[in-house]
Amino acid sequence: PRSYRITLLPGDGIGREVVSVAKDVLSLAGSFEGVKSNEKIHSFSLASMISSNKCISFVLLSYAGIEFRFREVPIGGSALDSVGVPLPEETLTAAKESDAVLLGAIGGYKWDANEKHLKPETGLLQLRAGLGVFANLRPATVLSQLVDSSTLKKEVAEGVDIMVVRELTGGIYFGNPRGFGYNERGEDIGFNTEIYSVPEIDRIARVAFEVARKRRGKLCSVDKANVLEASMLWRKRVTALASEFPDIEIFHMYVDNAAMQLIRNPKQFDTIVTNNIFGDILSDEASMLTGSIGMLPSASISESGPGLFEPIHGSAPDIAGQDKANPLATVLSAAMLLRYGLGEEQAAKRIEAAVASTLNKGFRTGDIFSDGTTLVGCKRMGEEVLNSV
Amino acid sequence: PRSYRITLLPGDGIGREVVSVAKDVLSLAGSFEGVKSNEKIHSFSLASMISSNKCISFVLLSYAGIEFRFREVPIGGSALDSVGVPLPEETLTAAKESDAVLLGAIGGYKWDANEKHLKPETGLLQLRAGLGVFANLRPATVLSQLVDSSTLKKEVAEGVDIMVVRELTGGIYFGNPRGFGYNERGEDIGFNTEIYSVPEIDRIARVAFEVARKRRGKLCSVDKANVLEASMLWRKRVTALASEFPDIEIFHMYVDNAAMQLIRNPKQFDTIVTNNIFGDILSDEASMLTGSIGMLPSASISESGPGLFEPIHGSAPDIAGQDKANPLATVLSAAMLLRYGLGEEQAAKRIEAAVASTLNKGFRTGDIFSDGTTLVGCKRMGEEVLNSV
Ligand SMILES: CC(C)[C@H](C(=O)O)[C@@H](O)C(=O)O
Ligand SMILES: CC(C)[C@H](C(=O)O)[C@@H](O)C(=O)O
Repeated sequence: PRSYRITLLPGDGIGREVVSVAKDVLSLAGSFEGVKSNEKIHSFSLASMISSNKCISFVLLSYAGIEFRFREVPIGGSALDSVGVPLPEETLTAAKESDAVLLGAIGGYKWDANEKHLKPETGLLQLRAGLGVFANLRPATVLSQLVDSSTLKKEVAEGVDIMVVRELTGGIYFGNPRGFGYNERGEDIGFNTEIYSVPEIDRIARVAFEVARKRRGKLCSVDKANVLEASMLWRKRVTALASEFPDIEIFHMYVDNAAMQLIRNPKQFDTIVTNNIFGDILSDEASMLTGSIGMLPSASISESGPGLFEPIHGSAPDIAGQDKANPLATVLSAAMLLRYGLGEEQAAKRIEAAVASTLNKGFRTGDIFSDGTTLVGCKRMGEEVLNSV
Repeated sequence: PRSYRITLLPGDGIGREVVSVAKDVLSLAGSFEGVKSNEKIHSFSLASMISSNKCISFVLLSYAGIEFRFREVPIGGSALDSVGVPLPEETLTAAKESDAVLLGAIGGYKWDANEKHLKPETGLLQLRAGLGVFANLRPATVLSQLVDSSTLKKEVAEGVDIMVVRELTGGIYFGNPRGFGYNERGEDIGFNTEIYSVPEIDRIARVAFEVARKRRGKLCSVDKANVLEASMLWRKRVTALASEFPDIEIFHMYVDNAAMQLIRNPKQFDTIVTNNIFGDILSDEASMLTGSIGMLPSASISESGPGLFEPIHGSAPDIAGQDKANPLATVLSAAMLLRYGLGEEQAAKRIEAAVASTLNKGFRTGDIFSDGTTLVGCKRMGEEVLNSV
C-alpha cells in the first residue's frame, strides 16, 4: 500500500475533538478501496470497527489502499502550556519531515493577553513560514443542503462557489521593519510593513491562475492599487502574467468594492486571488456567506514540501470539550489533504461524498441545525461520516 | 440670517448631478424655517421656484433661516483634465476657508492607469490630509422602506443601524516609508507602512466613544492585534481610554471576525471604530448590508476646521450624465454637513424627513427600484425631495 506520514496538530479548544474525527475518517477513506460495493463487509459496520480500533488490520490487509502513519505534536496554546513556546522545535521538525500536516485550531482567551512571541497565533505564523506554505486555498461553497443556514436570501446564496487564493507567507504579516518605537514628535508608535516582491506575487498569481483553470476559468485579483504601492506592483504583475493564461478571464477589483460585491452578488466570483491581510478578511467574509463556517476547510501549499490543512474556523473555547463542535470542516480539510497534499483524488472524493451523504441523511451539529434535521454531537457526526465512507 | 460658506466639489462621473441636487436641497432646507405648517406658501410650490431660481429672494427674505454662499471648485479627474493635478492649490484653499465642504465623487476608468501622483484618488487623499479630517463617520442604516433591497434575509437586515468610525488621515494610507525598490535579493518590491501613534489613536477613539454615547452606547473596536504591532498599540489605547467612558460598553474584535459577524448578525453592532484600511473595507461591507449604497452619506471631521461631507458611493462613470444616479446619498451628506459641520440640527432633520417622505411616496431611482414603486431619474428625485422639505 502507499504509505504517508501525517503530522497531526490538534492545537487548542475544539481542535482535539475535530482532529480526532478527521483522523478516523482519513484512515478509513484510505484503508479500503472498493468496499463501498461490498455489501457483506459493509454490514460488518466498518465504521464502528475502525473507531474502536478493532479489526483494523483486517481491513487494511484485505483492502490495501493508503496507509497512514500519524504523529501528534503540540502547537499554539497547548504547546505554550506544555513546552513554553507556541511552536516547539520538535513540532516544526515533525511537520517538515511528514508528507502532510493536519491542524485543528489554535488560540483561546487564556493566552490573548500574551506578548507577541508567546501568542498561540505566533506559533501558527511560524509554522506557515517554516513550511513555506505561501498559497492558501479557501473554498466558500454553499452546499445545497445548508443553503438555509446563510443569512443571505436563498436566491443570492444558492450556487455560490468561490475559491479564495490567499498569499500566506508574505505581506504585512511578515514584513519588516515592524514593532514599537517613537516618532519625530516623541510619541509612542506601533508599525508594520506591507511588502511584496515580484517573485512572491508571481508564484501566488500562478497558483491562482492554475486553480481558476481547474474551476470556471474566471479570476478576480483584489488589491488597493488606487492607494498602496504594494498593490500597484501586485496589479502590474498579475496583469503581466495574465498573458500566460489566455484561457482565463481576469479582472481586478479594489478590496473595498470586493467586500461589497461579495454581499451584493457573490455568484459573480469564481476564483479570487489576493494578499495575506485582504485574504484574511475576504476569505472569512466569503465563508460567512455560506452560513456554515463549521463546514469550511482550507489547504496551504508550498513550492515542494508538505502542505498544511486546517478548518477555517477557530478554536471556539466556549464549546471546547463539550462534544458540540462540527468536525466536518476538519474532515473536509482531510479531503483537501488527500487531493492537494498527496494527490489521492479518489480517497478525497470518497470523503466528500461521505460528508454529503451524512448531510443528506439529515445529521447536523448545533451550528447548522435547522427544523426537521437530527441534532448530533461531534463524535456522533464523525461516526455517521464513517458509516457513509 | 446665519450665513455659511460651502465649498462644492462635484468631482467626476455622477458627482456633478448629485451635488447639484444636494445644493438645491441644502438651500431650501436652510432658507425657510416653519414653512412646513404654512399651507398657503406650500401650495406655491416652493420646490419648483427654488429649482428654477425664480422668487428665491422672496423665500429668503420671508423666512430668514440659514443662508449659504456656495463656491464650486474642481477636484479629481476633472481637475486633472482642467488644471493637470488632482487637487489644485485653489481647491484646497477654498475648502480650508469655507465652513464645510460637500463632495460628489471622484475617479473613473479614464485615469485608472495614471501614475500615483496623477490619480484622482490622490486628490481626495490630499484633501483629507489637507483638511485634517481624521474622523470619518459612515452610517449604515437599513431604512424600513428599503429593507427589501438588501441581499440579506429580511429578519437579518431589518433594524440594522451601524455607525462606522474610521480613522482617515493615518495608517497605511499615509505611512512612510512607502514606494518601490529592491530587496536584498535584488528583486523588485512595492511597500507601504501601517503606522499609528498614541495621539492619533486616542483622538479617533475619543470621537468614537462620543459617537457611541449619542447612539446606543456600545462600541466595537476592530483590529488585528493577534498579528500586527500597530493593532496591539491600537487595542491598548482603546482599552485604556475606555475607563474615561464607563457608560460605554466596549468590546474588541479581530478584523476577519468582524467581516464575518457583519454578515452573520449585523444587529450586534452599534458603533464600530477602526483604522483607515480596515475602515475602508468594513464600512463598505456594512453599507452593502443595507442593499442601497446610493442612500449612504458620510462625514469627515477635523479637530477644528471645516468638515468634508460626501456620499460613500463612487463616481459610477457608466451612468454619468444619464440622469440615472441616486442623489439621496449626497442629499443625506448635506444633512450630515448641517448636523456635524455646522451644528444646524433642525435643518438636518428637515432634510432627513424630506428624504423619508419622498421614499414613503414611493419614488425610487433605478438602484433601489422595486415592483410597485415609481421609477424616477436623478433630477426628478431631487424635485420630489424639494417638494417634501
Ligand atoms: C489566527 C490568525 C493568525 C490567522 C490569520 O490571520 O492568518 C487566522 O485568522 C486565519 O485566517 O488563519
Ligand atoms: C477612493 C479611495 C481612495 C477611498 C478610500 O480608500 O479611502 C474610497 O474608497 C473611500 O472609502 O472613500
